[in-house]
Amino acid sequence: MREVAIIGVGMIPFGKFPDRSFEELGAPAVRQAVEDAGIGWDRIEVAYCGNVIRGHCPGQRVLKEVGLTGIEVVNVENACSSGSTALRGVWSLIAAGVYDVGLALGVEQMSTQITGAIPLDQDDLETGQGLIMPALYAMRARRHMEMYGTTREQMALVSVKNHDHSVHNPRAQYHKTFTMEQVLGSAVICDPLTLYQCCPTGDGAAAAVLCAREIADRFRDKPVTIAASVLLSGATNVEPRDLTASDLGDRAAKRAYEMAGLGPEDLDVAEVHDAFTIGEILHYETLGLCPPGEGGRLIEEGHTRIGGRIPVNPSGGLLSKGHPLGATGVAQIAEIVWQLRGQAGPRQVEGARVGLTHCMGGGIGGVDGAACSIHILRR
Amino acid sequence: MREVAIIGVGMIPFGKFPDRSFEELGAPAVRQAVEDAGIGWDRIEVAYCGNVIRGHCPGQRVLKEVGLTGIEVVNVENACSSGSTALRGVWSLIAAGVYDVGLALGVEQMSTQITGAIPLDQDDLETGQGLIMPALYAMRARRHMEMYGTTREQMALVSVKNHDHSVHNPRAQYHKTFTMEQVLGSAVICDPLTLYQCCPTGDGAAAAVLCAREIADRFRDKPVTIAASVLLSGATNVEPRDLTASDLGDRAAKRAYEMAGLGPEDLDVAEVHDAFTIGEILHYETLGLCPPGEGGRLIEEGHTRIGGRIPVNPSGGLLSKGHPLGATGVAQIAEIVWQLRGQAGPRQVEGARVGLTHCMGGGIGGVDGAACSIHILRR
Repeated sequence: MREVAIIGVGMIPFGKFPDRSFEELGAPAVRQAVEDAGIGWDRIEVAYCGNVIRGHCPGQRVLKEVGLTGIEVVNVENACSSGSTALRGVWSLIAAGVYDVGLALGVEQMSTQITGAIPLDQDDLETGQGLIMPALYAMRARRHMEMYGTTREQMALVSVKNHDHSVHNPRAQYHKTFTMEQVLGSAVICDPLTLYQCCPTGDGAAAAVLCAREIADRFRDKPVTIAASVLLSGATNVEPRDLTASDLGDRAAKRAYEMAGLGPEDLDVAEVHDAFTIGEILHYETLGLCPPGEGGRLIEEGHTRIGGRIPVNPSGGLLSKGHPLGATGVAQIAEIVWQLRGQAGPRQVEGARVGLTHCMGGGIGGVDGAACSIHILRR
Repeated sequence: MREVAIIGVGMIPFGKFPDRSFEELGAPAVRQAVEDAGIGWDRIEVAYCGNVIRGHCPGQRVLKEVGLTGIEVVNVENACSSGSTALRGVWSLIAAGVYDVGLALGVEQMSTQITGAIPLDQDDLETGQGLIMPALYAMRARRHMEMYGTTREQMALVSVKNHDHSVHNPRAQYHKTFTMEQVLGSAVICDPLTLYQCCPTGDGAAAAVLCAREIADRFRDKPVTIAASVLLSGATNVEPRDLTASDLGDRAAKRAYEMAGLGPEDLDVAEVHDAFTIGEILHYETLGLCPPGEGGRLIEEGHTRIGGRIPVNPSGGLLSKGHPLGATGVAQIAEIVWQLRGQAGPRQVEGARVGLTHCMGGGIGGVDGAACSIHILRR
């Protein structure tokens, strides 16, 4: 298996753009990534596109817009992990030696597709009973509070931190800071989760150009190497168990660290799936950034802020950068690439050499995720 | 890159089953494939699922039903090539050495999802002008008639042949023969195409278990080797050109034959994308089964019937076996595997050693396809 590098990334500012076509969202991200890679369009041999709600050849649509046709195109859907699934698809074909260069794209337009709530999936037993995402995370939060004494204030601090970070990210959906009191005082969505503890919906796109590591230096300096690529689905039909633990997340993290030959202590920066504040706290523990039960203390002590021991979501995370489903996984990759190149401007994590991205997608069966993806990048 | 084999296939009879759940369609196909492979469930490390209209983690849904959870699952969509895209995804991860064993699944439920016509994509310029699939193929048919003297009778014979074949396929949606007069006399859909020259909608599922060729003999005898796997998208934005030729199909066929080290003369049997009768004739030419323009004569002279020089669609093809979009590509693979193993019963192509599957998906941009996939299998 060959080593694979990321040589170009691009991302449009996330937001709500109901007047733009789907293609107009994706195209600029692709153009940026290809330009950033310093590579000719004719070198790109394959593209994977992550998208959840558009349907029907979203990748071909966007690539037609930029004139990148005639290559292999695959559209993938894996709930919130769709973008990182696209990245892994391109990675696997380059690692296999099928191709030398490929493009991973994630694009989502929620502003025009979702006018009210996301339609419930009536076929799913748990969803039909009301176990939608905010409810699921709220249950996890209550359980974490019970078991470990995690406080509402600690959870709110995740939102405060990520909104603070996103002020320095010109591509974030929001650029507004909140105090802990404001976060706690916002509308209750599902107790203990308040509005500012839930990620927004929005539109967005991100792209990355990958190539075989052995030829990456031909195209640009500072290629970033993919040290680990892991994608797993949950053991969704096991008996009910501790909601604060994730067997899926644990297995994915273990496999990623093994593949990279690295541990959590080697990480300099991470982009973690903070669709809800409690999620980031739970994922701290899953990823080994702190022992189980100590996620609340980790955020409270400031270790995951920029400048802290292990900054998490310097981009602003899903909570403030935004979460256009299919785009998120690739946008996380773009942020880590910028961080490892030292191009993150005022949100730069100084001297970052190793970064991790983590997505937890879906909730089929209510408890565990449909797809957890972890990538570890190093410069 | 490692050689990959197919060691198990499964498929439910295609038809219209509005009373079954989506999961109940997919699960039996998966169970059959795993049983056919003679492999333990715990050996399966990855699954790709091809599906077009269900949306939202269709693979995880079906796999939960059979208890196959905790592995990597990827959902892919590539119009009519979704199933073969799933096969290729699993192929690539095994070829790369990431995994040893994987499952490709295709499943579609059209009877409950499409109550009238398939909704038009209003964003697509050509589609908005009425260039839907039957119209596109009708234009191709008219052009082929003009250029090469292809007749309505020759086109109708494709339907006659494929319905004749499907009488011997217990998994086909239809088991009814038609005379040429009946085909020509059925309702006009888009002149010159009549009803019996257009594939039906329906529900279906198919699955295949793949493994590294080097370990295939441990699990079962007669493993079938994947000699070529090709997936390409169309050059959708080139200038208008001869509708009877397919640059996309030509490139995919050339690449597949090169990869396999074989030519059209080596094929013993093929499953070809006959969504419309003229399609099969065009694809004869693209695949090199006859020179350009001679597809009409090839069918008229009986060369593509079972017992002919190169039998095409012994399963009954999309026209009579049915075309549940995401399932089709994997069902084609199942048919060729049965043929190469000598297990096709009364529709067996005697002594078949090399077979080809071909899908042409989508029509973004109206002219060329969104995804053409070709696999060449040999025993």
